[in-house]
Amino acid sequence: MEQDRALPQGQRPVLPPDQVVAGAAQKEGSGARPYCRVPTLKRSEKDKLDPAIWDDFLKSCYYERGGYEDPATYTRLKERLETLEKTHRTRGNRLFYLAIPPHLDAVVTHLLGNVKLLQRPGPEIPWSRIVFEKPFGSDLKSTFALNAEIQKVLSEDQIYRIDHYLGKETVQNILMFRFANTIFEPVWTREYIDHVQITVSESLGVEYRARYYEGAGVIRDMFQNHIFQLLCLVAMEPPASFDADHLDDEKIKILQSIRPFTQASIPTLAIRGQYGPSRVNGKEVIGYRDEENVQNHSTTDTFAAITFFIDNWRWQGVPFYLRSGKRLKKSFAEIAIQFRRVPHLIFRGVSSEVLNPNTLIFRIQPDEGIFLTFEAKHPGAKLCLSSVTMNFNYQEAYGMELPGAYERLLLDCMTRDKTLFSRSDWLELSWKLLMPLIDSWATQEAPGYPNYPSGSWGPKAADSLLEQDGRRWRNPTE
Amino acid sequence: MEQDRALPQGQRPVLPPDQVVAGAAQKEGSGARPYCRVPTLKRSEKDKLDPAIWDDFLKSCYYERGGYEDPATYTRLKERLETLEKTHRTRGNRLFYLAIPPHLDAVVTHLLGNVKLLQRPGPEIPWSRIVFEKPFGSDLKSTFALNAEIQKVLSEDQIYRIDHYLGKETVQNILMFRFANTIFEPVWTREYIDHVQITVSESLGVEYRARYYEGAGVIRDMFQNHIFQLLCLVAMEPPASFDADHLDDEKIKILQSIRPFTQASIPTLAIRGQYGPSRVNGKEVIGYRDEENVQNHSTTDTFAAITFFIDNWRWQGVPFYLRSGKRLKKSFAEIAIQFRRVPHLIFRGVSSEVLNPNTLIFRIQPDEGIFLTFEAKHPGAKLCLSSVTMNFNYQEAYGMELPGAYERLLLDCMTRDKTLFSRSDWLELSWKLLMPLIDSWATQEAPGYPNYPSGSWGPKAADSLLEQDGRRWRNPTE
Repeated sequence: MEQDRALPQGQRPVLPPDQVVAGAAQKEGSGARPYCRVPTLKRSEKDKLDPAIWDDFLKSCYYERGGYEDPATYTRLKERLETLEKTHRTRGNRLFYLAIPPHLDAVVTHLLGNVKLLQRPGPEIPWSRIVFEKPFGSDLKSTFALNAEIQKVLSEDQIYRIDHYLGKETVQNILMFRFANTIFEPVWTREYIDHVQITVSESLGVEYRARYYEGAGVIRDMFQNHIFQLLCLVAMEPPASFDADHLDDEKIKILQSIRPFTQASIPTLAIRGQYGPSRVNGKEVIGYRDEENVQNHSTTDTFAAITFFIDNWRWQGVPFYLRSGKRLKKSFAEIAIQFRRVPHLIFRGVSSEVLNPNTLIFRIQPDEGIFLTFEAKHPGAKLCLSSVTMNFNYQEAYGMELPGAYERLLLDCMTRDKTLFSRSDWLELSWKLLMPLIDSWATQEAPGYPNYPSGSWGPKAADSLLEQDGRRWRNPTE
Repeated sequence: MEQDRALPQGQRPVLPPDQVVAGAAQKEGSGARPYCRVPTLKRSEKDKLDPAIWDDFLKSCYYERGGYEDPATYTRLKERLETLEKTHRTRGNRLFYLAIPPHLDAVVTHLLGNVKLLQRPGPEIPWSRIVFEKPFGSDLKSTFALNAEIQKVLSEDQIYRIDHYLGKETVQNILMFRFANTIFEPVWTREYIDHVQITVSESLGVEYRARYYEGAGVIRDMFQNHIFQLLCLVAMEPPASFDADHLDDEKIKILQSIRPFTQASIPTLAIRGQYGPSRVNGKEVIGYRDEENVQNHSTTDTFAAITFFIDNWRWQGVPFYLRSGKRLKKSFAEIAIQFRRVPHLIFRGVSSEVLNPNTLIFRIQPDEGIFLTFEAKHPGAKLCLSSVTMNFNYQEAYGMELPGAYERLLLDCMTRDKTLFSRSDWLELSWKLLMPLIDSWATQEAPGYPNYPSGSWGPKAADSLLEQDGRRWRNPTE
């Protein structure tokens, strides 16, 4: 169990917490892990840090070994914390960060509560909060149950359901881009937008996460959280204000407006896949079924491509194509708003079909930025139009390294800003939407797995999903 | 008199004709000039040229000395041309380029016609065309008269009234930008645009052009042609097609819709100025009245800033602020479309007044390109919005030197493409619009000339022109 010393309100952690919580990826481990991240920190961050600050920081790091379900652990933890709080004269604020197997979230919360480490908020009372790593629950039922269990011990404002995607600069910028500028919102409608693509592609395989991933698959791992959050930010109506609750209200309206799956619609809207062995970036790699801790005949999905429709005034008839997968050709994550073609083209001998429609890209990784493609005249005497791109690259624009998403989010926990965290009803709705798909795929034979080679862009059927609508996935070129 | 050997149709001139026609700036000279541009060409272009092509080109250059108004000159010219056409086995096509004092345009045209150098077009007849350098006429009356005179000798499709601004890539791209893209035209209206600024600023003084400039001033030199063309391209409705006549029809509609000056409106809409001595780019410079060939008490305007309104559905209430001047702080030319502020801002503690509204810039010089400023979140935990710019720079995008405007335009003359030339009715209308202002300024005392120091952004009154509307000129920062 990793645990952070609570920092005084508003004080910035001295090092990017990404590194501290990197262990979040190892949820399948049982029992407490040693304070194993320090060597990682040293390697990647130490050079950049003031050695005095670094040493000072190390002196404030402690490790308490114990079992998740062992009550004695929590008694020891409490005593230890009380001692440390005196030694370091902190104000007693505590932020717990649970990057543990999801089925233990409720247990650990209860055990922390039993030893009175989770005091309800009140005047003059130091705060206690818990950050829950995703996945929060593993289906609608368990999420519902988990919310109910932890709400016995915690009030909603002590609960921080984290989705590190929301801490990324480009993701946060979607709302600024839409609502702090005059010129985009007027064209942000079915009248001007042809379709939207959201891709979260990984070239990595399941790595050391197979024990978790076997039970999860791509829908639980990516769609229910990251991708649905992106979808909501792109599609939502302007909220009354930027307050967390107002944002959640609008995000929830989107989930409520998404056209639900039916048994008949699933095969035409959703494609699944699992990677086989092949080459990625010139390196021979094994298939999913050969990965450590994966069953020989596993039917876990490592890829999905799904068409969603949002049945409201703004988006009627505009498909949202969402996809994610492992062992794809390249790692990249982006939202592409593809606008419609020009209604009429005045240029001699140029038909509107040969022109590329405008595309607006929110690139989440790599190279966070915003890109707008438009048609321009190629220099010279002939009238040739070609696509050019206006670029806005964060790193270039601000000449600084972007703060890590976790750094931002953990600071928000400390300053009690829930804007970038998921509310319980949002989570429950997202599960509710996906359960028919999850259940259908669980009961029906997977389509000849593995069905896409590593290093490809997923199964052919994913391409057909768009081709049947006369469209194509945007894939980065070599 | 400079003259180009007519090139076979579709063949590109081997060197940028900018250099050949640089003499156009020296309209006030009388009598033929020697073939004086060759040394200039050598200096700037020779290194880039294949020496074989260069030598071959030089062998095809000839010079015929003569007087503008001397009939014998034209007889000799005709004989010479007929000989050369045989020697070089050209097809007899002839392009005359008149960069001569404007009052001689009609005379020279008639004299060329008298010796039958300007055959009317017809099947199997080699073509003869004349390019007229600007200014075409010097007021409404003289333009009307000049059109009538040359049309006695030439049909309209033999007449090419050149405005080299229309040959610039960014200028040509205004229409592509507007009409080959879906997302800009919906916001290209009074509903979303607050105002438009067009600036053509020169840090140079009158140089060696005083004899022409004394009689012209900034309105004739810049507004009646370049700036009005830019205004028309930005403001026009989509034309039926990109054909020259359809474009002109729409440009003319804009001129017809511009709210005419009245004696009462001139003082509130139009500011004039003349530069005094001071420093430009760290160099001491003299005032306009001290320039060679300028009268001691000259009241010629070297600066003007004018507000125009276009009374139609698209632009009602949107001011177009146009300015141009000599000896200003920096040389630059751009069109800035300033959009309105966001109607409502959802971000806590940020009022819409502190946000910069979106601006779209067509930069004509230096560094031709298109720039879009928008508000984005500053990286980090705090919600700070700041303006960032999406860039599209021609040179970077295409990795090539842009063809010169004259190169483009002269090639268009040879291939009979009049898209980028001015039709007679457009010219007459532009003069008609400006005459009340020209006449008013000619009859009223100039306001304490010189009224702005060299190296400034013009007279203070020009700033007040926008400030009274709560707006400011966009000036490049140091």
